[in-house]
Amino acid sequence: MKKLINSPDSVVADALRGVEAAHGDRLRVTFDPFTVVRADAPISGKVGLISGGGSGHEPMHGGYVGPGMLDAACPGEVFTSPTPDQMLAATKAVNGGAGVVHIVKNYTGDVLNFEMAADLAKAEGIEVETVLTNDDVAVEDSLYTAGRRGVGVTVLVEKIAGAAAAAGRNLQEVAEIGRRVNANGRSMGVALSACTTPASGRPSFELGEDEVEIGIGIHGEPGRFREPIGSAAQLASRLMTPILEDLPFRSGDRVLAFVNGMGGTPLIELYVFYAEVAKLAAEHGLKLERNLVGNYITSLEMQGASITLLKLDDELLRYWDAPVDTPALRWGA
Amino acid sequence: MKKLINSPDSVVADALRGVEAAHGDRLRVTFDPFTVVRADAPISGKVGLISGGGSGHEPMHGGYVGPGMLDAACPGEVFTSPTPDQMLAATKAVNGGAGVVHIVKNYTGDVLNFEMAADLAKAEGIEVETVLTNDDVAVEDSLYTAGRRGVGVTVLVEKIAGAAAAAGRNLQEVAEIGRRVNANGRSMGVALSACTTPASGRPSFELGEDEVEIGIGIHGEPGRFREPIGSAAQLASRLMTPILEDLPFRSGDRVLAFVNGMGGTPLIELYVFYAEVAKLAAEHGLKLERNLVGNYITSLEMQGASITLLKLDDELLRYWDAPVDTPALRWGA
Repeated sequence: MKKLINSPDSVVADALRGVEAAHGDRLRVTFDPFTVVRADAPISGKVGLISGGGSGHEPMHGGYVGPGMLDAACPGEVFTSPTPDQMLAATKAVNGGAGVVHIVKNYTGDVLNFEMAADLAKAEGIEVETVLTNDDVAVEDSLYTAGRRGVGVTVLVEKIAGAAAAAGRNLQEVAEIGRRVNANGRSMGVALSACTTPASGRPSFELGEDEVEIGIGIHGEPGRFREPIGSAAQLASRLMTPILEDLPFRSGDRVLAFVNGMGGTPLIELYVFYAEVAKLAAEHGLKLERNLVGNYITSLEMQGASITLLKLDDELLRYWDAPVDTPALRWGA
Repeated sequence: MKKLINSPDSVVADALRGVEAAHGDRLRVTFDPFTVVRADAPISGKVGLISGGGSGHEPMHGGYVGPGMLDAACPGEVFTSPTPDQMLAATKAVNGGAGVVHIVKNYTGDVLNFEMAADLAKAEGIEVETVLTNDDVAVEDSLYTAGRRGVGVTVLVEKIAGAAAAAGRNLQEVAEIGRRVNANGRSMGVALSACTTPASGRPSFELGEDEVEIGIGIHGEPGRFREPIGSAAQLASRLMTPILEDLPFRSGDRVLAFVNGMGGTPLIELYVFYAEVAKLAAEHGLKLERNLVGNYITSLEMQGASITLLKLDDELLRYWDAPVDTPALRWGA
């Protein structure tokens, strides 16, 4: 195992020191417990948004903290849920009196810990709504999940619900918009290689020389099946068919297409892949109104990609387009 | 070799189809020859900026085309210089009557082809100034280079000179600012793994199980030496010492620090690395006024990172902060 780290034990703390050094002008990093918070939080009267999960998926979630997106993130150890005390600390740090939304990816540890944190926050008089993401159509009841896994749509929920909160919408409205994004989004991924957590030092699974895993999870959880690697066109079709059938997406639907790299796949390949996704979407009659191509929810150095399609309406589109100013997503005024 | 591609022969064309599908609202992609041009080019009275080089370094250069940065990019085949006809086409496409700056990384093929393109453009009455980048302190006279290689500082030249052109500066001024960025910038990189070009199908070099290459080039060109992998702190010091000595950077200097991923290293590791860079910079008395952390000039799926330090003055800082709106760098109004 070769990694650009100091020690497997200190990876998360060391990375957070880097986040603090790079973005300390706009983010406040705490180390006991680990949180990344907007420097200007809490914002009086604004609904707060927090998320969190195991580290190793960067830029998710810390890279999405800032105006127009999250108010705070709680990074756990690599591929390990953060603890309720982190979530409670973040909730209190961003509570501006209008309540706090917890955006939770559907993994058992995250769900349980966020539930406990929400209970603790409510006991302190903070209103909390939870938005659960479970957009991965690959499998039900995976290694760490009852039901479907939460993957790429989480980025879109954080952006769109974040914009709704920035626009002054109330707690129930922001949560409803977040849930609508999840309900209208579907994802699936493919791995060309495994990843290695610093603590284990070994690949999370073994793939044959020419084999890919269709339906991979973001922690290396098993997908639907393995097969010899095909062309980008074939792989795009492998992922798009179940995504399109699941919602289902219908001809004429307005869609945001998100091609996400798993961390170790170069951008040139992600654009090759996006071309195939766009072609399949057009063949299906979809109107591709927006897109996002890059490494946004990763699995350490895993090679591979996922596709997320989100059915848009005017409101979701307007909030997608709204300004955002975070380390990983920045646009607008 | 497992890659998310259709065929080794069509990688660049297929990726450009993806760029067109994703960014066709703001970029114009041509396929014969390959160019990526701002949709609103040429802009009358504005100095045009183009760059180009072999593909495989994405988002460089196509991801930097847009307001506040490049007017066009010329992608060559993977790790292969673009041709003079591409550069001439791009030059003509962006010529708004105020001349065109060619930003050229110091590799022999690129230099010769850009020289020829500049001559052809001048013969057609277009004024051309060339800014050569050669910021890599690792080695002199590398595999594809006489003198020093152009690496990370190229991103900074494109951003800062691009802002100067957007601000209405004239051809000589924009070129002078670009040259000043190169003169004030120094870089060096480390590889933890090799990369594999689609055409060759084999790793560009072999590294031992626990070995790194200090001073690696962005095409896998040899660096200064190999050694067993050390901690992120040790590796940062390996790169920072020659960088700091070379300019030299002095206590009190205002600096932009750029930690660049080679393509296959996850962002969590880049932040670990940035923490060490910031610490060493502080120990040296530098004032770290700006930073950039991420995959900006890559070597396909190579694992590793490079450090670029740029000595800032008020003007360079102002142009760095100016708005930019490209696929890969976006901020401001």
